[in-house]
Order: sequence, then C-alpha cells, then structure tokens
Amino acid sequence: MIKEEKKGITVKKDQDFSEWYTQVVQKAELADIRFGIQGFIVHRPFGFFIIKKIYEYLEKEIENNGHVAFLFPSVVKEENLRKEKEHAGFTPEVFWVSEAGDKKLEERFALRPTGEAQIYPLYSIWFRSHKDLPFKGYQSRISVFRNEMTTRPFLRGREFLFFETHDVFNTHEEALKQIETDLMICKKIIYDKLKVPFLYFKRPQWDKFKGADDTFTPDTIMPDGKRNQLASTHDLGRNFAKAFDIKVMKENEEMEYAWQTCFGPGIWRTTAALIGIHGDDKGLILPFDIAPIQVVIIPILFSDKDNKLVIKRCEEIKNRLNKYRVKFDNSENSAGYKFNEWELRGVPIRIEIGPKEVKEDKITLVLRINKNKINFKLKDLKKEIEKYSKSIDEEIKENADLYFKNKMKSANSYVELKKIIKEYRGFVKVPFCSIKMDGAECAEKLKQDTTANVCGVLYPKEDNVKEGLKCIVCGEKASHIVYVAKSY
Amino acid sequence: MIKEEKKGITVKKDQDFSEWYTQVVQKAELADIRFGIQGFIVHRPFGFFIIKKIYEYLEKEIENNGHVAFLFPSVVKEENLRKEKEHAGFTPEVFWVSEAGDKKLEERFALRPTGEAQIYPLYSIWFRSHKDLPFKGYQSRISVFRNEMTTRPFLRGREFLFFETHDVFNTHEEALKQIETDLMICKKIIYDKLKVPFLYFKRPQWDKFKGADDTFTPDTIMPDGKRNQLASTHDLGRNFAKAFDIKVMKENEEMEYAWQTCFGPGIWRTTAALIGIHGDDKGLILPFDIAPIQVVIIPILFSDKDNKLVIKRCEEIKNRLNKYRVKFDNSENSAGYKFNEWELRGVPIRIEIGPKEVKEDKITLVLRINKNKINFKLKDLKKEIEKYSKSIDEEIKENADLYFKNKMKSANSYVELKKIIKEYRGFVKVPFCSIKMDGAECAEKLKQDTTANVCGVLYPKEDNVKEGLKCIVCGEKASHIVYVAKSY
Repeated sequence: MIKEEKKGITVKKDQDFSEWYTQVVQKAELADIRFGIQGFIVHRPFGFFIIKKIYEYLEKEIENNGHVAFLFPSVVKEENLRKEKEHAGFTPEVFWVSEAGDKKLEERFALRPTGEAQIYPLYSIWFRSHKDLPFKGYQSRISVFRNEMTTRPFLRGREFLFFETHDVFNTHEEALKQIETDLMICKKIIYDKLKVPFLYFKRPQWDKFKGADDTFTPDTIMPDGKRNQLASTHDLGRNFAKAFDIKVMKENEEMEYAWQTCFGPGIWRTTAALIGIHGDDKGLILPFDIAPIQVVIIPILFSDKDNKLVIKRCEEIKNRLNKYRVKFDNSENSAGYKFNEWELRGVPIRIEIGPKEVKEDKITLVLRINKNKINFKLKDLKKEIEKYSKSIDEEIKENADLYFKNKMKSANSYVELKKIIKEYRGFVKVPFCSIKMDGAECAEKLKQDTTANVCGVLYPKEDNVKEGLKCIVCGEKASHIVYVAKSY
Repeated sequence: MIKEEKKGITVKKDQDFSEWYTQVVQKAELADIRFGIQGFIVHRPFGFFIIKKIYEYLEKEIENNGHVAFLFPSVVKEENLRKEKEHAGFTPEVFWVSEAGDKKLEERFALRPTGEAQIYPLYSIWFRSHKDLPFKGYQSRISVFRNEMTTRPFLRGREFLFFETHDVFNTHEEALKQIETDLMICKKIIYDKLKVPFLYFKRPQWDKFKGADDTFTPDTIMPDGKRNQLASTHDLGRNFAKAFDIKVMKENEEMEYAWQTCFGPGIWRTTAALIGIHGDDKGLILPFDIAPIQVVIIPILFSDKDNKLVIKRCEEIKNRLNKYRVKFDNSENSAGYKFNEWELRGVPIRIEIGPKEVKEDKITLVLRINKNKINFKLKDLKKEIEKYSKSIDEEIKENADLYFKNKMKSANSYVELKKIIKEYRGFVKVPFCSIKMDGAECAEKLKQDTTANVCGVLYPKEDNVKEGLKCIVCGEKASHIVYVAKSY
C-alpha cells in the first residue's frame, strides 16, 4: 500500500509542468501542503535540507562581505507600517494579531510583511555619527507573511522563507557599490553553485519596489515560460532614512540622512528554479553539493548464499565514502522500486552491488543526470566518485545553459511579439520607448494585449539600441531594448 | 555624547543583580528593548552571535544523533490546539490572527505556543509502518509566542527563540533511551562548552509538562538565587499519539500507538545563564569559542613619531591571528575607554601594543577573566594565544563550579528551611513525602510559606533517603530528597 503511493511522476515535464512540479514537490517529500491552514506549508526534511544549504551559502557570502547577523521580532508595529506607507508607498495586505487568549489586545500588531518598517526605527536610534557607518546587517532563516490567496510551494504562500540585508551608508556611491556586490553574490550562489542561469535586470520605474529609487533583480525563466524573480536588491536612496529619521552627524557636524540598500535573495524562488529547471521526467536532478543524499548504494540480491557478501560489501563501501552523504538502502523493496525512488529524489550517484561486483572487486555506478552506467575497480572508488561529483555539476550547468539560451527570442513588430508570446515561453527582446514613468502606458497596453510584463533592461550593460528603432508598442523612438515575459 | 552613554556598569553584580543584568544586556548590545511592542525584543548582532553559536552547537549534536531538520509554519490551527488541550491539557494564552488587511479571516489561527499541536497531525499522516520508526525530527532557529506580561531579555517575552525535537518510537524503551541522550547533549553543550553548571531533575508530577508522563530538566541557579530551567525533555508516553492518532502497523499487522519524546533546550534561558553566572562587575565574561570577538588589539599611542610603527605592528598581529575573531580597535577613543568597552563586552583576550612592545618585539596581553597582565615574545604569539584560549575556559569553569557549589544547602526542619530560603539564594535539599500527585499539597504549602518550588529529585540517581527521615512539610515518612528553590 505504501509502495503504491510512491510510484514515479505520472506526467511529462514538458507536457504539464504545473502537475509535474506538484508531483515532484510531494513525491520527493520536499514540502507537505496538508498543514490545514490555507497558504501555509510544511518544509519536510528532504526539502528543508536543500533550503538550509542555500541559507548556509548565503550566510557565508554575506558575512565575508562584512555583514553581521541580527534578529528582529516576527511582528511589526502598526504605526511603523503606516509611516512606511506614507513615505515609501509600500502597502501589502498584512495579517493582524488583535487578540490574545480571550481578550482583545490594546494595540494590535502585524506579522511582518518584510523588514524595513520594523528595522529602520531602531536604525534611527543606533546610528549617530558618520563613524557608525557603513553598517551592514542581515537576518536569515526568518519568515515573512502576506495574505496571498494562491498557494504554490516555494513560489507563493501566506508565510514564506526569507533572508534580507539592510545596509546603511554615508554616501550614495557606497550604496551603489553594495548593489554590485549583492548581484555578484547572486551569481556566486544561484549560478556557480546551484547552476541556475539568469539575467540581471534593472526594473522599469513602474515596477520597482515602491520605496526604492531603483530595483535590480536576477530573473530566470521557468519551464512553463514564466519569469521567476530570484532576488532583488534595492537602491533605497534616502527615502526610508527620511521616513524613519535615520541621520548621522557628518565630519562638518551637520546632521544628514543616510543612504540605504536592502537585498532579498529569494530562498523559496531559488528552490523552485532549482527544482523546475534541472529536473526531468523521472523527478529531481540536484547538483552534488546540495543533494541531501549524494550517493545511494543498492544491493542487487539473488541468492541467500551471496546476499551476505553483497550486504557486507555495501557496508564497506558506505564506510569508505564517509566524507559524502551516503544512503545504503537495505530495505525490503525491490531494486527497481529503489531505483525509481532515488531517481525521483535526485540522488546524483547510484552504486549497484551484486554478486558479480563482489566477486570481481568492481563497482557499478549509474549517474542520475544522464543514466550512464559505468564500471570501475573497487580500489578506484574514492577517485571515481570525486571525478563524477564534478562532471555531474558540469553537465547540469551545460544543460541549464542550453535550456536558458532557448528561452530567448527577439521580436521586431508588435504582431510578431504577440505571436511569439502566445506560442513560445521565455524572454522576448523588443525595442521600447522608455523605462521611466512615461513608458508605463505602453507597458500597460502590452500587458493587456499579451499578459506579459516588461522585465526591464539588462544590467549593468544594456543592449545597444540601433539607430532608427521604434518602440514596439507606440512606435515612438526606442531608447531601450527591454525583455518581456509572463511572470508569476 | 556617545562616549557618555557607553560608560561601564554602574552597579555591583552581587548587590543588585537585576539592574546589573539589565545594564549588561543593553550596554554590551546584546538586545534592544526599544522595539515598541511590549514583550518583543531585538537581538542585536553582538548578542545574536552568541545565540547563533548555541544553535550551531545544538544542530550539530542533534544531527549526529540521527535527527533531521524540518520547518513547520509559525502558526497553528485552532482545532489542533483544542485537540491538544482536551487530551494533553496544555493551554497557554495564545495570540490569535483573526484579520488580514481590512477583512476578518474566515478561520482564525494562532501563533504557535510550541510545536506539538502543529507537528503531530502531520506525523499521523507520515508514519504508517513500524519500519518508518524511529523518526527523529527537529526545528531550529524558530520563534514561539505566548502572551506573557513580563519582559526580561532571554528570560521572558511574548516571542522567544526556540529549538525543539519531536521523536517517535516503536517502544517505550527507545523513548527512555532518547531522554538519556537528550540530557547528555545538554551536558555536552551547556556545561562542557558554555561552562554553565546545573543539576538534572525529574520534575514532580504536579510540575511536569501537562501532556507528558514525565519531565526531565537541567536546572541552574542564577545569581539572584532563582532557578533557571535550561532545557526540558519529556517522556510523552502515548498521550499525544492518542490525541493526534499517530499509529503504525506492527510486525504482527496490528495498528498500535507510537511512543514519543520531545526535547526543548532553552536557547534564551541558556544565554541568560551564560550572561548571569560568568559575568562580573565589569560586564560579560565569555568562554573563548562563543565570544563574538576573541581578541581585541589596542594601540597605546604617545607620540606621532612612534604611532605609525605601533599601528603597523597591530595590523601585523591581527593578520597573524587570522584563525581567530580579532578586532583591532583603532578608533579615536582613549585607551582607557577601549579597555572598559571590550571588558564590558567580554572579549577574552586584550593585546596592548605601545612603542615599548614594538621596540622589544614583545606582546602585552591582559586576560578578561582575571585581569592578569602577561608579557611574552612576539614570536610566541600564536602558541600563547592557543594556550590562553584553553586556560581561560578552564578558569571560567572553575569559577562557575565554585559558584554553583555554594548554591547548595540542606535543611533539616521546616523552620530552618524557611529561614534559609529567606536569607540565602539557591537550592535547598530537604526530605519530602512524595513527588506523585499526593505530594502536591505539601508543595503548595511550601510555596505559600516560602515562595519557593519543589524542583524535583536528582536524575538519574536520586539522593539516598536515610531511614527515619520525615517530610519537611507534613512530617509523614519521607520517600525522596527533593531540591527546593525560588524560580522565574
């Protein structure tokens, strides 16, 4: 009965991505949607292992960049939320805590939708002198809350996992430099480690974070053709400093507002991209370092006579590979069942040991990424695993790069753009009049005609706009090449 | 102006511990109580570094013991809280989320007061067969919430930092063995690493966790004489399994309720003990490994001629000690100001470098723990730091052991007990009639007469009860030696 449930993914990834994704999340035991309150999910051990790893990568990089960890409450004062709204215009639908036990609270408070309104009032107390800056702080392994109506594990929910830096500088130049660093950290983790390709965008003015002067994001494309924003870093200018009175005394003894940035790598969104982009019809495919189980050893049992030797050899191999996360699956399930189970879970390397392998002192190894079956001598075990741990990642990267390359097209006319968006899934490069507020009208028309959004211009180096190009929507002179895509 | 605020602790620890504690928390920048919502505090970087370390120690030990990490939402369904209350009797005053934006929610939900009622409904889905057990899961770096009215950083608050394991077993024997392991992990971290001494207790039946058959705790005594419960591990028997229907099919194909334990090391409480027990009139004293800054280098500057050389030497020393967390305090503050600042913050080792040290290639070093001033050759730097990093911890441990030894007295009569409790701060050993429910009346009388609680009996080895001893309260035959103390 239990075995029945565990059968593999029943749809092809490229035929029904949405159903494929749902099945992978459930059957690989990444998350459980049966928590009982709409929009709240349980992170199961297999999925949370991956998420913890992403957090660890981030914490390491951000600390190497001089950030210190702090932790604010999960809640925020109503007055501070209102202050943020007045000055920076951000107004999500928040959850209110208004009762405790059977009594009404004298003053209700909200579950934090993000950190600004809770952190910056303290910043206005902490910093007095220009010598207190720069200050780079972050909080990790926290939740934020919004009353979303749709639930999709790692993409949307009412509580989602968060990581945020909040940096304060004496000058705008330092703030801009931090934004470069934030984006570089995205590359180091999302692309170099997790092999998820993306483009950096500067968002159009109508689609930036409302409290920011500019918003920069790495965006990827999911297999259903939708844009997945993997992170964002904001040039907050002095908007929040003015809203929350963050001032320091300069060398000339004048009080001046500070410059701020904040960076929010999307823990959930990155996990969703990792699942969606690398996986295949059999289930998850994971880079070696992030796989909860890196090597699974499966005994191939035929006769009682040999079985003891096979089991013993499997245990020996497990011990010899103790620097890796190894699972010896000695359960009663059939070998075929085990193959499916661990392929679904994305275990990068499978070792099969039967009587033949024992007799000949050999190893049979199968790679998850390409199903290649490889034989080598037992004595070469460590060397070979080391070798494949690297080649696997290389191959995942090549596949993802090719995938991503195919997600990029250009359109020269509005008719062509509409046709492409309808039939094809990915970014479409088009000439566009403006990414300042005067371009909003064209973006709105484009959205209505195609359901797609203007993601922005490439950053830091925009595409060249050739002489004579016209905006694909209004036909006025084009001043940018923008990327258009449907989005979540 | 800034300097004024940073002056040292203004009270003696043994004269006004409460004020001392408040000042240390604030002036060493461990926490900030100015968040603006009563009962919610901000963990500042210096304090959160220590807390993150405690989490890391715990995660490592608990994973070595076969636990896997998961993460449940911050909220809990009302129906499940009610189920817990009916079966296991636990009913804290919870916060209710009943509105979102400007609308009332169809179904309100609570901020979790602890994990049982949110986790166990999923356990009843996850486990089907005895082969699925044992299962050992934990969540770390999470918050729990209760509507407490008093706020005291790291001791009481409406949101406090949590860590919890929730283990499920086929047999009661395995569950009891896990409890031994949980207690052993407490020793490894709280005593071996953090040098906080404690006693293990089995709580009396009237003071156990209501859903448990038995509760076991390491308790210490704070300098104000109050008991600080540092952790608890519960033998849940099959109480929650029955409440939430956690059953597995046994080898004989019968469905049977599972056995459970849960372990909650007190992250906050342990931090409070670390601050309170080790600190002195100057401020924090920290074991070497947990100190956010392990070595501070302070230049002693006299004349412009020498200053450049001194600064250069300080930088050299910092580079040579790159395996440690080193701060080179090159700010404009006076040397005396810096000494006070870093003593307050508990930096274990201070290096002072002046022209003399440069000229003679020597190091002057001062230990926080005992103010000893030590000189040695520059070339011995690494070796000496290594040596002192160990001797410091040894001395902290010796001091704490001596402190704790002095927190233990015995009483032979009720009059004597009342007198001791009044004048003295710590545990008092007394003969007692019963730690089952029939002893509750004596405990209640004791509480009314002295404001002190019965902590329980030593675990795993109770004190011997000598022939003829009578309960100190009722005068009936004593069957236990219990420990009495005031508590938080």
